[in-house]
Amino acid sequence: MTPTPRGNLIIGQSGGATAVINASLVGVVEAALEDKRVDGIYGMLHGIEGLLKEDIIDLRQQPASLWPQLRHTPSAALGSCRYKLQDNDLEHVIEIFRRYNIRYMLYIGGNDSADTAHRLSKAAHQSNYDLSIISVPKTIDNDLPHTDHCPGYGSAARFLALATMDSTMNTISIPWHYPVKVIETMGRDAGWLTVASALGKRDEIDPPHIILTPEHPFSADRFLTQVEEIYRRIGYVIIVAAETIRDEKGQALGTVGQVGTDAFQHPLLSGAAQNLVELVKQHLKLRARFDKPGDLQRMASTCISVTDQQEAYLVGQMGTLAALSGESDKMVTLVRHDQPSYHCTTDLIDLTEIANVQRLLPAEYLDESKTMVTQSFYEYALPLIGEPLPQYKRLETTRLTKR
Amino acid sequence: MTPTPRGNLIIGQSGGATAVINASLVGVVEAALEDKRVDGIYGMLHGIEGLLKEDIIDLRQQPASLWPQLRHTPSAALGSCRYKLQDNDLEHVIEIFRRYNIRYMLYIGGNDSADTAHRLSKAAHQSNYDLSIISVPKTIDNDLPHTDHCPGYGSAARFLALATMDSTMNTISIPWHYPVKVIETMGRDAGWLTVASALGKRDEIDPPHIILTPEHPFSADRFLTQVEEIYRRIGYVIIVAAETIRDEKGQALGTVGQVGTDAFQHPLLSGAAQNLVELVKQHLKLRARFDKPGDLQRMASTCISVTDQQEAYLVGQMGTLAALSGESDKMVTLVRHDQPSYHCTTDLIDLTEIANVQRLLPAEYLDESKTMVTQSFYEYALPLIGEPLPQYKRLETTRLTKR
Repeated sequence: MTPTPRGNLIIGQSGGATAVINASLVGVVEAALEDKRVDGIYGMLHGIEGLLKEDIIDLRQQPASLWPQLRHTPSAALGSCRYKLQDNDLEHVIEIFRRYNIRYMLYIGGNDSADTAHRLSKAAHQSNYDLSIISVPKTIDNDLPHTDHCPGYGSAARFLALATMDSTMNTISIPWHYPVKVIETMGRDAGWLTVASALGKRDEIDPPHIILTPEHPFSADRFLTQVEEIYRRIGYVIIVAAETIRDEKGQALGTVGQVGTDAFQHPLLSGAAQNLVELVKQHLKLRARFDKPGDLQRMASTCISVTDQQEAYLVGQMGTLAALSGESDKMVTLVRHDQPSYHCTTDLIDLTEIANVQRLLPAEYLDESKTMVTQSFYEYALPLIGEPLPQYKRLETTRLTKR
Repeated sequence: MTPTPRGNLIIGQSGGATAVINASLVGVVEAALEDKRVDGIYGMLHGIEGLLKEDIIDLRQQPASLWPQLRHTPSAALGSCRYKLQDNDLEHVIEIFRRYNIRYMLYIGGNDSADTAHRLSKAAHQSNYDLSIISVPKTIDNDLPHTDHCPGYGSAARFLALATMDSTMNTISIPWHYPVKVIETMGRDAGWLTVASALGKRDEIDPPHIILTPEHPFSADRFLTQVEEIYRRIGYVIIVAAETIRDEKGQALGTVGQVGTDAFQHPLLSGAAQNLVELVKQHLKLRARFDKPGDLQRMASTCISVTDQQEAYLVGQMGTLAALSGESDKMVTLVRHDQPSYHCTTDLIDLTEIANVQRLLPAEYLDESKTMVTQSFYEYALPLIGEPLPQYKRLETTRLTKR
């Protein structure tokens, strides 16, 4: 391990924001503030995109009272970006680092950000510039490999579990008013968020009744048969569907509202839930509607998982310590322990193992129908969402004897 | 005032559910449990629609521990209905009341439910059947006249204020990713919910930037001009639109997804936000998307306003006391006092003043643009949403001197 010379540290946030990504930022900053090996502590505004414009701020100049408050503020306080670093940007970044004597870089982000960090790390090495780059994991999509889970997921999962419970409470107040409801989730190619909607489900009648993940091709016939069967049996049907579900030919259901692709060629979609609603209305003649919580999945301040927030802080803190001890080209991972009770420690993994790799939902978390979770998913995910979910009370509904 | 003979009391819940409608139920029940003038305490399942089928339960048989817990459970624990009482149902209901010796009826609902209660009251009088009927107000739409506000509104307003703040936190992390966002709200013909989205706004740059209420005809030209101007000035635009907005010809923007009408001939719509997004994409070539929180507006358990929940309990409790003291054909109202600090007492108003009357958003709560609220709206609404909204922290973003 090359000893890294004393120098300045810079932090950036990248990709889709989460409700706890600022906890990671504060973890990075507070660890740096406490460590004598760091000189300047800088922030790049809007990630690598802002760095290229030298939009750099001095985090030592922020009031000390800010950090504990920012820890509980959702979204990326530094601003984020979805910029794909061009090959000719690499040298430019290293040249900026030289000028500002930046020797440590912490980059909080997901798969794409890990790719950015890895390429920068290689470029620094080739330019013979001594630089420690550590990725700090973050994504509501939970699709990073080699980490038990990703900070941001626990809070988004908590939101979706509660949203599914709460929205269904409205449906069951008059089941025949709108017997079919679709709740649309994010998640890119992975069904992690979609299945989180089941975390409040305690028995078969509880929502959701059908979960549609991006990993499994959508069949309209199978879907309609299933909706009809559940409707006949319990009188209403709650469906949770990823916005990215595709049919057997690979056609995205959401392409009705397709609005282009982002810089990483991920298609930007809207419309899967609307399409499912139309299918149900046309073929089953049932009234149907949809909820599309959209960006609330990322950001709902009222659904932050305390566990998730603590872990987000931890990976930030450990990222700084790793960078300062000379580690580079690595991402911090969460290592889970279930004894004596659930807790996480951290480790490091090479960025080559992470960059642009997606961890999809494992087969063991869905049952044979592929539209419902298994017990092992609950064991995996329940500890991540923090406090137990509420158990709503019901009246005992034995009818009076008729008079 | 006719002294009402001792008899049984029945409670029903009607119309769209809210996050606090069970607090009213518990208010009704606990007041009845404490009063010696009441014999049986019954609940009708699914309101008047269940009553006609004699789906009646005995609320004295519920475990005592249930009531404090149910007070915090969103939605209508008795089940609700949207059934318009037919003329030939009236005698049937009175006949059922005779058989079960029901002398007090509490009906928790909005305008349509007040109409139901009023017609039943008249029918009882014509049949010479001694019956006290009291309506207990409830609606997230806040459109009942003669009450300062409606239980259910404060919690839905809190949800929308927080949802607008939180969702915008995502937009500003990368404003250029999706610079235009539309958040679609409920509210029927009234803009009360739509304007509640502004309750977290502290300065001009804060969201929302454009509020589209059902009271004011939508003009695509004016809208696009406004979106473009705000986009140029601050780089992103947050629009909050009622699902029921109509153009100058009275055509609903949401008719793309129109799914019919309900029993009271209110059109059932979906699609206003989607249409606004398409307008922006086609005419301004800006990336736009929408959040449609849907039933979460009614039900979000994490956004319940403590004030709203307490007031919902109060109107239930006072409804029972009014019925037991022989009042009938009336609705409980909330009377606001701002000295020494905000609090509400209750009064009664004749149902003829309420039934089928809608209170739209007063002109004084919108400024000249008709797309932004005035200070007087904050004074009206802020006390209703309970605890102060969070104030999110921002970094000081003075750039480093370039090196």
